[in-house]
Amino acid sequence: MAHALSLGRRCMGQTWPNPAVGCVIVRDGRIVGRGWTQAGGRPHAETEALRGAGEAARGATAYVTLEPCAHHGLTPPCTEALIAAGVARVVSPFADSDPRVSGRGFASLRAAGIEVTTGVLAAEAAEDHAGFLARIQRGRPRVTLKLASSFDGRIATASGESQWITGPEARVWVHGARARSDAVMVGAGTARADDPALTVRGFGARRQPVRVVVSRLLDLPLMGQLARTAQEAPVWICHGPDIRPEIREAWEGLGATLLPCRLAGRQIDPLSALEALGERGLTRVFCEGGGALAATLLGAGLVDELVGFTAGVVLGAEGRPGLGALGVGRLADAPRFELIESRAVGADVLHVWRPV
Amino acid sequence: MAHALSLGRRCMGQTWPNPAVGCVIVRDGRIVGRGWTQAGGRPHAETEALRGAGEAARGATAYVTLEPCAHHGLTPPCTEALIAAGVARVVSPFADSDPRVSGRGFASLRAAGIEVTTGVLAAEAAEDHAGFLARIQRGRPRVTLKLASSFDGRIATASGESQWITGPEARVWVHGARARSDAVMVGAGTARADDPALTVRGFGARRQPVRVVVSRLLDLPLMGQLARTAQEAPVWICHGPDIRPEIREAWEGLGATLLPCRLAGRQIDPLSALEALGERGLTRVFCEGGGALAATLLGAGLVDELVGFTAGVVLGAEGRPGLGALGVGRLADAPRFELIESRAVGADVLHVWRPV
Repeated sequence: MAHALSLGRRCMGQTWPNPAVGCVIVRDGRIVGRGWTQAGGRPHAETEALRGAGEAARGATAYVTLEPCAHHGLTPPCTEALIAAGVARVVSPFADSDPRVSGRGFASLRAAGIEVTTGVLAAEAAEDHAGFLARIQRGRPRVTLKLASSFDGRIATASGESQWITGPEARVWVHGARARSDAVMVGAGTARADDPALTVRGFGARRQPVRVVVSRLLDLPLMGQLARTAQEAPVWICHGPDIRPEIREAWEGLGATLLPCRLAGRQIDPLSALEALGERGLTRVFCEGGGALAATLLGAGLVDELVGFTAGVVLGAEGRPGLGALGVGRLADAPRFELIESRAVGADVLHVWRPV
Repeated sequence: MAHALSLGRRCMGQTWPNPAVGCVIVRDGRIVGRGWTQAGGRPHAETEALRGAGEAARGATAYVTLEPCAHHGLTPPCTEALIAAGVARVVSPFADSDPRVSGRGFASLRAAGIEVTTGVLAAEAAEDHAGFLARIQRGRPRVTLKLASSFDGRIATASGESQWITGPEARVWVHGARARSDAVMVGAGTARADDPALTVRGFGARRQPVRVVVSRLLDLPLMGQLARTAQEAPVWICHGPDIRPEIREAWEGLGATLLPCRLAGRQIDPLSALEALGERGLTRVFCEGGGALAATLLGAGLVDELVGFTAGVVLGAEGRPGLGALGVGRLADAPRFELIESRAVGADVLHVWRPV
């Protein structure tokens, strides 16, 4: 199962809206087939593994990192393929929460005389499928928020100079995290100030993450990197109800997808934006700031994972803060996180946190 | 030598103005004597180790973590004791930079027919003696600056609430660091806002670190913890030239030591303050902020070691910054540090940096 999980991770970030599943088929103690959900979400892991195993699948055990699907979607159900191949036993961490599957996959297998074992490495699998599960159970993608700052929590000098605070190894890490995500998200201020491409360089990504910008008024540079590359990799913009029609047409003309969202006060309601992304199939969103969007997400309790990079440079109180105003009155009300990991990445410190 | 170094660390922070030295005497592959400079700086490590070895020191090898002293101070020179005991060989990392010793210790030993080997674990020894060497070579103590903050670099909410941001394990670490330091230093703002005791709780400290406050006008609370405990552990105040005589008398009456310092602009010149501390014998100073003093020290390039604690809480941009204004214009001019260590301490991340 550990091997199946590692196979499942191979296309993480590239299979949405489908989960990134791994499958290993074992017969007489020997691996006869291995597969994982391919970029784009198809073929499914089981199909791939069965194709590799061929006749050897008869009487074998299939380790699948999520309950095999039992419904007819764009591909025939995997349960049928497993039954047809003559698999004797299926081992899986837990039932799929997707109401189209949820236990029915296991039931079909058992009805066909296949032994089903569940509960194996369930915690690890839940971690790998956290994005898929968030979308199914909460109607929104899992959100990782990354903030890279100086030792004293600043992201730029008073004059706005920000390249580079963290080192090249941290930037490589960020590209890896983007590659494992369905989408990279920034606020409008960052899109205007940094004019980022938000694409993945390296990591052999076959499907670029969706670039998501949260911009109430759609007032983003029409000559910027995102606008220029909107044909090459998707650009989705979460906007408010009060946008000017000519700006809407310009962005639609460039090929961007516009997602209308509710407002909460004067800002876009972050939950509304995430729900719009979930509705479109996104399961894992990697948010890279800026400070205002980060504060909005943190304040709304919508950050599932918080990643910090701390660099060995001090900028002082006149530098720009990495996080905007939160409106925290009492210390007891401040969002708290527990430490999951901390280590050196190049010259910087990486620290990963989860909500308490 | 590694064992001698670890012995030398036993009274680190308690031996000033003397170095914290360790000594191991080995004869026929067996340790016959061990010693380290005792709290208060006397007896010296060699004296202790020779007392333990007794007659067994004859023909033995003495591992000493710093060149044995050759001058008559408050104790007779250690070289004489080593010669009198009949030691055959002395192994040491490097010559003492103290002009009263500097090579003369080794010369006396050689003149008496003792074989002298140097260069053993010199880098490790230089690290342990960094405070002593800073005082001898640069006329000021070594400075460690510790700043504990939220994930986003804040030390208090907008309303000033700051207890507790970091956890109990981080606080224990801080008390250990205080115990290994000759002095704990804070700025006047912190002394007023937090009313800290700055004493070491635990760690069996026999000599409390000196509590140093940098306060240009000496306008510190006369009923605070520092004032109330000035008889129990030393309180030294670095002040400017423009203090009112009645405040000076009040603090002198409480038992504080007043150190007049130069001004640089409207603030106390941090180098002047550190030189005053070095002149009085301090070798290792542990500075715990606040933000203004920290920024002054960083801006003047006087921080030899930077220690950060990052907690899993976010306070937002309206929280109080851990570091004051630095006046950094260009990013290239910002003080840079390299990472020495990073690890979890309880629920927080500890990261230690040295100037590049």
